[in-house]
Amino acid sequence: MRGFQERADVAAVERLIDERLRTLPAESVDLAHAAGRVLTEDVIAPCPVPAFDRAAMDGYSLRGDETFGADPYSPLEFTVLGQALPGRPFAGAVGQGQAVRIMTGAPVPNGADAVVQAEAAREIDGGAKVQISEPVPPGRHIGKRGEDIEGGSVLLHAGRRLRPQDVGVLASVGVSPVAVVRRPTVAILVTGDELLPFGSKPTGFQIVDSNSVMLAALASRDGAATARIQMVRDGHDPVRRAFDEATEDVLLISGGSSVGQEDHAPRVLRELGELCIHGVALRPASPAGLGFLGPRPVFLLPGNPVSCLCAYDLFAGRALRLLGGRPVALPYPTRALPLSRKIASVVGRVDYVRVRVSEGKIEPLAISGASILSSTTRGDGFVIVPADLEGYAEGTMVNVFLYDGPS
Amino acid sequence: MRGFQERADVAAVERLIDERLRTLPAESVDLAHAAGRVLTEDVIAPCPVPAFDRAAMDGYSLRGDETFGADPYSPLEFTVLGQALPGRPFAGAVGQGQAVRIMTGAPVPNGADAVVQAEAAREIDGGAKVQISEPVPPGRHIGKRGEDIEGGSVLLHAGRRLRPQDVGVLASVGVSPVAVVRRPTVAILVTGDELLPFGSKPTGFQIVDSNSVMLAALASRDGAATARIQMVRDGHDPVRRAFDEATEDVLLISGGSSVGQEDHAPRVLRELGELCIHGVALRPASPAGLGFLGPRPVFLLPGNPVSCLCAYDLFAGRALRLLGGRPVALPYPTRALPLSRKIASVVGRVDYVRVRVSEGKIEPLAISGASILSSTTRGDGFVIVPADLEGYAEGTMVNVFLYDGPS
Repeated sequence: MRGFQERADVAAVERLIDERLRTLPAESVDLAHAAGRVLTEDVIAPCPVPAFDRAAMDGYSLRGDETFGADPYSPLEFTVLGQALPGRPFAGAVGQGQAVRIMTGAPVPNGADAVVQAEAAREIDGGAKVQISEPVPPGRHIGKRGEDIEGGSVLLHAGRRLRPQDVGVLASVGVSPVAVVRRPTVAILVTGDELLPFGSKPTGFQIVDSNSVMLAALASRDGAATARIQMVRDGHDPVRRAFDEATEDVLLISGGSSVGQEDHAPRVLRELGELCIHGVALRPASPAGLGFLGPRPVFLLPGNPVSCLCAYDLFAGRALRLLGGRPVALPYPTRALPLSRKIASVVGRVDYVRVRVSEGKIEPLAISGASILSSTTRGDGFVIVPADLEGYAEGTMVNVFLYDGPS
Repeated sequence: MRGFQERADVAAVERLIDERLRTLPAESVDLAHAAGRVLTEDVIAPCPVPAFDRAAMDGYSLRGDETFGADPYSPLEFTVLGQALPGRPFAGAVGQGQAVRIMTGAPVPNGADAVVQAEAAREIDGGAKVQISEPVPPGRHIGKRGEDIEGGSVLLHAGRRLRPQDVGVLASVGVSPVAVVRRPTVAILVTGDELLPFGSKPTGFQIVDSNSVMLAALASRDGAATARIQMVRDGHDPVRRAFDEATEDVLLISGGSSVGQEDHAPRVLRELGELCIHGVALRPASPAGLGFLGPRPVFLLPGNPVSCLCAYDLFAGRALRLLGGRPVALPYPTRALPLSRKIASVVGRVDYVRVRVSEGKIEPLAISGASILSSTTRGDGFVIVPADLEGYAEGTMVNVFLYDGPS
């Protein structure tokens, strides 16, 4: 038994991830599943929106310059030729003294150049004529062809994470399916013979695996397509077999990543591929590691739950986000607030400090144990103390990463 | 044809939603699907975590007061009795001058009260003895029974939206399955004979339905379990049949909700249930409406895409969030920033204004048409002008709701 010889900087691990990994290739998805996905290429509008001049109001389409002078006391009369509905245009043309009843979204008939709102019109003679009580200049209440989207223009850029309304825009120009970044698949390997599978009741000296379900939820948040959980027995051969058999884009192995005698994962990784990082100057996740099986990253995550969460968020989550084409930054909302108490750290080490936010101040939680998972449920978020600082003095404005989103 | 007689206040619509709807009842879910779900009741810890005193470090468990005086130049010797591993405790007891090799997470043997880290220990005599070079007070490097979670304490409160780590905590105390708020189901009914189903190419005067896929993505974001899309032909009977046959918790009907001649939805709703609101003092979603079929809300959403987005977010999304036990507030991150240009509005109406954020300022987008969906893709978010204001002057600090989350 001995400690880690040398601990890598957090920044070096991040650099390694950013250098070695590339965004996954494209796949084609139906619009019904496109929201939240990331475009692999610019989308060019194949046609304008609207594709034709259309009414923006319910009312009467006519020649705008014929309405000048209309007011409620001296309305102007027009002959109603017929009607235009969405998808059912008026077949003829609108001439002098004529109007066509029109609904919002309907194509503007030939000859007409404006729409008078229904509120400023009154049909008479059983609908044969209409009295207009308000002047409208040409162009009024008409959505011009291409005014929303010009045909041939870049609609959405590569790298865009599709909003619900982006999917609507794609539908309206007939782009479907759409090319998006394939989502990474993840294997979550859990070692530790003392562990009962999640869903069990803890008994005696056996504890229940809690990292796998947490990691699966985190991976899903970061865009993983699937997160397969597998319990792996302690021992060189079971770990090697699990590594050999996993086909996922990213492997996470929780527990058995320290330098204790039961920690087979680093050794197996060295045998089958590369062990690039083992031990990081990061509290509370110093036993974390990173290696590769061919191009696929393997993250050694500490068994302690808070360390596991911390190492996932800073390293494994970064890899998933990068592979999936998302921004690599931590996906938590942040707020800048003053510290109610100082945070002590040491130069050369990054600290992940769980905090509460109360009365507009950030309060570090007193407990520091890596096993205290409840600190991440009782806390509101965390503060990262960078490696070049000895900590933060009371009152310093710092960024807190909030565990809960805006809703 | 005539306009809306009277428009409801946005606040009145929100009040009606909040008064008429209640959080859905509980359902039981496996921990693998619990993240993001909302607890219906407090969860009490059925057992402490840890359930026994355990080592927080790899090293040697012994009696702390026997290590006083140890230093690298005069280490103290202990007899190694055996080892304690996670799930495999040491069977005997630790007496004077004795130690047990211990791994992180292993139960602390009877008699021992502290752990010396591996780094401060050196085995000699083939592992029969260990030299300790650092004193440890009793209790050091030991995770005490119940220090993370006390048995019988409230672990997580009702209403909690489960974080990934919350699910881990539930797993560790053996709570599974867990009772969470059932997620609402949604029917999205799309009317308009001019509409081609999403995924089609627009042709001639036919446009492609874009609201349904947008609404499905929005509903999913707001926690809907399912969002079924159905195209409904214009006409009283098809709309009535669609309402009759829908079994979902929430009905959204897009298009055909205005006062034009093809707008059957409000009439059918009045026949089958209640039409409470029809017409809202909201730009650009004034044709929006709200009614009920028994306890189930029915939202009349304008066919214009931006109006549809606006009416969904302010009203239908609020209902979904409420039913699902989430906070009713808009689920967008906000930032307070100054306006680069004034926003004009009128007293008595709420305005939903799409904006860009650039150089730390909020810039209202120039276009105001309700059909301009690209304003919600080119924009970064929106500003809500409340009903009691005539707008905002240039330079006013206002809250912008950002379409994209923190990642």
